[in-house]
Amino acid sequence: MEREYETYKAAVDEALLTLPLLAGAEQVELEAPTRAPAEGSVPLPLASAMRYSLTLPGKRLRPVLLLAGYHLLAEDWQTAMPYALALEMIHAYSLIHDDLPALDNDDLRRGKPTNHRVFGENTAILAGDALYSLAFETMLHDALTAPRPDRALAAIAEIARRAGVRGMIAGQTLDVKLEGKPPNAELVHYIHRHKTADLITAPVVAGLTLAGANQAQREAGEAYGQALGLAFQIVDDLLDLSGDVQVMGKQAGMDAQRGKMTWPAVFGEAEARAQAGRLVAQAVSATAIFGETAAFLRRLAEDTLTRVS
Amino acid sequence: MEREYETYKAAVDEALLTLPLLAGAEQVELEAPTRAPAEGSVPLPLASAMRYSLTLPGKRLRPVLLLAGYHLLAEDWQTAMPYALALEMIHAYSLIHDDLPALDNDDLRRGKPTNHRVFGENTAILAGDALYSLAFETMLHDALTAPRPDRALAAIAEIARRAGVRGMIAGQTLDVKLEGKPPNAELVHYIHRHKTADLITAPVVAGLTLAGANQAQREAGEAYGQALGLAFQIVDDLLDLSGDVQVMGKQAGMDAQRGKMTWPAVFGEAEARAQAGRLVAQAVSATAIFGETAAFLRRLAEDTLTRVS
Repeated sequence: MEREYETYKAAVDEALLTLPLLAGAEQVELEAPTRAPAEGSVPLPLASAMRYSLTLPGKRLRPVLLLAGYHLLAEDWQTAMPYALALEMIHAYSLIHDDLPALDNDDLRRGKPTNHRVFGENTAILAGDALYSLAFETMLHDALTAPRPDRALAAIAEIARRAGVRGMIAGQTLDVKLEGKPPNAELVHYIHRHKTADLITAPVVAGLTLAGANQAQREAGEAYGQALGLAFQIVDDLLDLSGDVQVMGKQAGMDAQRGKMTWPAVFGEAEARAQAGRLVAQAVSATAIFGETAAFLRRLAEDTLTRVS
Repeated sequence: MEREYETYKAAVDEALLTLPLLAGAEQVELEAPTRAPAEGSVPLPLASAMRYSLTLPGKRLRPVLLLAGYHLLAEDWQTAMPYALALEMIHAYSLIHDDLPALDNDDLRRGKPTNHRVFGENTAILAGDALYSLAFETMLHDALTAPRPDRALAAIAEIARRAGVRGMIAGQTLDVKLEGKPPNAELVHYIHRHKTADLITAPVVAGLTLAGANQAQREAGEAYGQALGLAFQIVDDLLDLSGDVQVMGKQAGMDAQRGKMTWPAVFGEAEARAQAGRLVAQAVSATAIFGETAAFLRRLAEDTLTRVS
């Protein structure tokens, strides 16, 4: 991993590990307390379940993209951290709910047992809800004292919309409900764009928005995020075809087993690989407007392909 | 139902039934589309599941409280509608998740089959997520063009906090995780305050905040909401002891069957009834600061008791 990615990621990991609201929830705790929790604290076992999924080792791609997007236009990228953390919380919530028995029924995530396997289904459902909630609480808390509340508000609205009912949840629904249906280019494009690309686009655009981007810059960020996000999911589909559990941190070959509508299932493996390459090129060229400052985002996009090369 | 309540409720019901995003989802639809949904629309069956739970007949207590709270200080209460709708969306999401087999495993809600009984567990989980999301999307969309974005932001933050990890979800977690545990006054107080009273307090305080309340007014709204909310849940516990399915729209006697920590289980039925009465008196006296304008909120609190008298 390159130095700039590592700098952002280390800051994100540090902030995730030291979230004041989840302090004292480091151990896996399955039981509720026998006395009322302190007001303003998050009760066990909820805090423990939230912390478990939020601090599993991961790439932190979405928070890194938010910080990098902000950093394109402003130096003090650390001030965007609440929004970066919110993106990782939303990602973690979506994985917890996605892994539930009623959805993908996964036992393994990021190399560890899934949330419901450790904490039970009831706590896992609530921990997902809680992480989604905490994402908004974290951003809104920052926005209340932000120097530019208008920018904060616009960034939160962008994130809410992309995570929401016309974004990630829409994609997630069709991903689940179209299992076993005949492969269809239009549908797989819809699923991947919303299930994955929307939550990769949101941090880039929100980061830019927080830093005061103009419309052309926001549109460039959107074009970058959509292309990168789609490439990222195609690569993920390809890895599921050929990858192993060690590399992926989750079981491979599951897409086919579940009858998921994947990119290679629709277009074939070779064409999927070629399309991922073209999408990365699109992502790279979308950043031209930012000049040399965007070198990091260009390398990040190019590195997406090396996962399957 | 009195005239003023009916006025607010009719406006809420009308707005819920005509939500543009859920237009075309009036029928129960279980299947995903065979073509990609239009961009910016909510796909089936998600929209259908969201609309099903959101438009089941209900008291609309939380949105009514938001509009009435706003109306204490400003005339144009219709402008607060996006926040009122958001409260009903949050309430509906919490009921869908609460009813799931892994949580309360309820078959009946508001006199109709629960969401997962109609749409299946996977869609129900996502529909809950989606309604929570739509609540924020709805409020943030309004806030972006609000005449006083500072007030909008403060109101959204208030709602997020009370619905969140130190509010409703905290109470919900202990409600579920303490099933079968010995009745305990401190714990039942914590559960009821957060599981129920927080989402009854949030609309009152948020409505006041949107209308420009000062701190003393917000604190009075909070005192009113907490007392009313607690009384409301105690009455609900009492109804579960004695009520029938026709009146409640859900199965009665379930709390005891599940070993829920209820107010009558801790304090006895007579004392619970007496405490509900005292809490209503507290709620009523908290509104003194608003003078005659708060007559509606006082009657609303008093009517809570007639459900079990």
